[in-house]
Amino acid sequence: MSNNRAVVLLSGGLDSATVLAMAKDRGFECHALSFDYGQRHLAEIEASDRIAEAFGVSHKTLKLDLRSIGGSALTDEHIAVPETPTEGIPVTYVPARNTVFLSLALGYAEVLDADHIFIGVNAVDYSGYPDCRPAFIDAFERMANLATKAGVEGHRLTIETPIISLSKAQIIAEGLKLGVDYSLTVSCYQADAQGRACGRCDSCRLRREGFMAAGVADPTRYQA
Amino acid sequence: MSNNRAVVLLSGGLDSATVLAMAKDRGFECHALSFDYGQRHLAEIEASDRIAEAFGVSHKTLKLDLRSIGGSALTDEHIAVPETPTEGIPVTYVPARNTVFLSLALGYAEVLDADHIFIGVNAVDYSGYPDCRPAFIDAFERMANLATKAGVEGHRLTIETPIISLSKAQIIAEGLKLGVDYSLTVSCYQADAQGRACGRCDSCRLRREGFMAAGVADPTRYQA
Repeated sequence: MSNNRAVVLLSGGLDSATVLAMAKDRGFECHALSFDYGQRHLAEIEASDRIAEAFGVSHKTLKLDLRSIGGSALTDEHIAVPETPTEGIPVTYVPARNTVFLSLALGYAEVLDADHIFIGVNAVDYSGYPDCRPAFIDAFERMANLATKAGVEGHRLTIETPIISLSKAQIIAEGLKLGVDYSLTVSCYQADAQGRACGRCDSCRLRREGFMAAGVADPTRYQA
Repeated sequence: MSNNRAVVLLSGGLDSATVLAMAKDRGFECHALSFDYGQRHLAEIEASDRIAEAFGVSHKTLKLDLRSIGGSALTDEHIAVPETPTEGIPVTYVPARNTVFLSLALGYAEVLDADHIFIGVNAVDYSGYPDCRPAFIDAFERMANLATKAGVEGHRLTIETPIISLSKAQIIAEGLKLGVDYSLTVSCYQADAQGRACGRCDSCRLRREGFMAAGVADPTRYQA
């Protein structure tokens, strides 16, 4: 028997806000978890606060110094965020980030006795980021069930990826149906201190194309 | 082809110091990684500094606030460390700790382009801590090879567990052969500010019995 308690990874972006809405809609008691991991800007942490508050769910932000590991444009100021599409794995890839975030969510789930972890990975990222592939999620889930008390005591922990096979436009349509206010979210890799998007990075491009494909107005606040 | 670069998880205790010695002895270029995760005392972090220095290897200590998750006697001062053996999973178990530590080691390995991660899990802990089981390590390794660039680019990452099937006495004998100075190590769950051991917790008990079984003098500094 699995319970209805869930840890929901919340980055402050469009995808994870939608995932939180979907988890709530499915009746889960949601506990949002965010990370202050040394990302370039705090705008996304502030966004996650606003989103959790809008949904009225508990929210914890865990400090974690990924900057000391480096290796990504998102945690190392000396590596520039690309503003044109690139081949292969992008420099914005943070080494093992989803593995690290899911592992910490696993620890939190164990403390809360939650049998579900929601994460907003999606197929659009698949080609670029290895840790967004369905095979990775399956392998993580299998490992997680061996890693924890739950595995020993006969619970079953599941990693829920409700948007893994949705396009950006489908994600947005789903979120709007569930009342997500996307003006609260920040997706940009280099947002300014006010949370305004650059409009040029990969993440901005995917997001803007998503709103266009969904046929709805883009509520994103862009830098002048 | 795998390279000879390795990330070695170093807690400051007896087991991981031995693992570092073994990795060095096998010719690996070792990069030690420790965590300041909100554990009760900093004595083990200071011990890991001394050990890395004694072996002349690079050493990074990453800050990570596991205290905000809680759920363990090692990160929550309101949960007492037991001083008599207990049944089942002990309260000193930190939720998903090895998963979290291995995940961060995975990120660091990716940045360093290291194909090996050494961790000092061992069979003595097996019955108590789910994340010390060989099946967990195998599942983590499989997941890790799907999680990272290495997996995409055809490298193969291995999780090395050289002491997993050794008794404490065998670990100590091996370490002494390789020149480990165990007086530098701290295993106690509630060491004092000077790094002196309580002599009463599970970890102290296992360690003391190990030195006795190995037939060598116990160099541990105990509290009066």
